[in-house]
Amino acid sequence: MTDDSGESLTEEAVRRWGTAHTPRTAELMTGLVRHLHAFAREVDLTADEWMTALGWLTRTGQISDDKRQEFILASDVLGLSSLVVQLDQKSDERATPATVLGPFHIDGSPVVESGFDMSEELPGTPLFILGRVTDLYGLPVPSAVLDVWQADVDGAYESQLPEVDEARLRARYRAGADGRYCVRTIVPLGYTIPMDGPVGELISRTGISPYRPAHIHFLIDQPGYRRLVTHLFPAGTDYLDSDVVFGVKDALVTHFVEHQPGPAPDGKVMDRPFLVAHYDFVLAPASS
Amino acid sequence: MTDDSGESLTEEAVRRWGTAHTPRTAELMTGLVRHLHAFAREVDLTADEWMTALGWLTRTGQISDDKRQEFILASDVLGLSSLVVQLDQKSDERATPATVLGPFHIDGSPVVESGFDMSEELPGTPLFILGRVTDLYGLPVPSAVLDVWQADVDGAYESQLPEVDEARLRARYRAGADGRYCVRTIVPLGYTIPMDGPVGELISRTGISPYRPAHIHFLIDQPGYRRLVTHLFPAGTDYLDSDVVFGVKDALVTHFVEHQPGPAPDGKVMDRPFLVAHYDFVLAPASS
Ligand SMILES: [Cu+2]
Ligand SMILES: [Fe+3]
Ligand SMILES: [Fe+3]
Repeated sequence: MTDDSGESLTEEAVRRWGTAHTPRTAELMTGLVRHLHAFAREVDLTADEWMTALGWLTRTGQISDDKRQEFILASDVLGLSSLVVQLDQKSDERATPATVLGPFHIDGSPVVESGFDMSEELPGTPLFILGRVTDLYGLPVPSAVLDVWQADVDGAYESQLPEVDEARLRARYRAGADGRYCVRTIVPLGYTIPMDGPVGELISRTGISPYRPAHIHFLIDQPGYRRLVTHLFPAGTDYLDSDVVFGVKDALVTHFVEHQPGPAPDGKVMDRPFLVAHYDFVLAPASS
Repeated sequence: MTDDSGESLTEEAVRRWGTAHTPRTAELMTGLVRHLHAFAREVDLTADEWMTALGWLTRTGQISDDKRQEFILASDVLGLSSLVVQLDQKSDERATPATVLGPFHIDGSPVVESGFDMSEELPGTPLFILGRVTDLYGLPVPSAVLDVWQADVDGAYESQLPEVDEARLRARYRAGADGRYCVRTIVPLGYTIPMDGPVGELISRTGISPYRPAHIHFLIDQPGYRRLVTHLFPAGTDYLDSDVVFGVKDALVTHFVEHQPGPAPDGKVMDRPFLVAHYDFVLAPASS
């Protein structure tokens, strides 16, 4: 190991990690070793820089807990989450595109019926999202469950509000036998990712905009179908071209249409203006 | 961003991180993005695998504290620490080679005089290490301070023993005006890296030996000279060819010579067998 650029060290590291007990682990670990070594060599990484990086990684783990997932955020802003989504979904051209999960999903939201208002008493303009959940051929996926979550008008998710102890702006909607669903909520706003941790610290050392365009998260995990993690974005909203987590896809941008007070899609009569979005989610089969 | 393999996503991520406020940060971040994206694409990383990796990173940060540095250990076993040392020290052919710092260094060890027994009352065979600290031309570095640390006969470093609250098997030795130093300690043994954390978990999924050969750590940080972080290894000890952290370099392997009871290098008379190693540390100038 006396060559200047450490090539033989890399070879030895690749040889060792190639002894992993499964071929896939060996493939992942040797690939990781090769690319990380190539990175260090290419940028001629210094010891000080590397110690700074290891300290950053440590703080990123330590600021994380049951609710805050700083490593998911790091992966998001590096474009890795979006890349992995894209690699995973390669073959499903007709299905609704997936996008990043983000760090704010909470498991176990209450299961509710179509039309339920998941915004309850919170401020904001009422929004109805309705449509169908279908397979690739337009046939309904009966009783599909749509796990929905979003930020409030201040850009805060429940997981960022430690004092909240019941479900807030999140619910699992059960579609009907015909695959139809109706979510009632409030209009989402764009927000910045959390800037008070190691990821924000890094972003603030660049010209990168820390904003996400307004969106609502959906997760549909139906037996027999490929799990779909996605968002809907309102057409014309800010930051669609600069989403800090690379989450925007054209097919996920949809019109949120303004309505004056009057009858709403859930059959009730609204005494103030509201918006309506129509969206059909198309699921790929599990095997694809 | 509709290309299958995510190339345009990578380009956009590189463009964004290229807006970093200093050219070096831009170089580091765009290099990192390119190599991590290339890795994900090459191994066709799945969402499940990536979530597993992010969970592993989070646990690696969370198990770390003031004393335990699991990310340094991760870097060590991937060969990255050793690679960075090698990249950093490229041009100093005549100087003592550097090697990995490892995760067990503790700052602020007591400053002691030559001959001090840093093993105090601990079990083990007495060992004297003596020699000079010089520059590249063999001239003494007067009053150089050698920060020395090692594991006990059970393979444990002080930082792994939460109940210890004073310096144990570590000290900073001040060399004389002629650059001469003499460390008294105990003979080191090989040990396994800590296997009870995320790094051990990963290693145990491979055929990689978790052992390090016996060694003693040295850090010499003298004004006007390049900081030297290194080890000495006893010739003929186990695991020299399979050091789990890639730390061995030929020029750091030295003879530990057995002596029968009698006069020791510190002038005292030993009533039991002891070992003696001679080693001269050669420092490069700070500017090189
Ligand atoms: Cu690479
Ligand atoms: Fe979000
Ligand atoms: Fe060690």
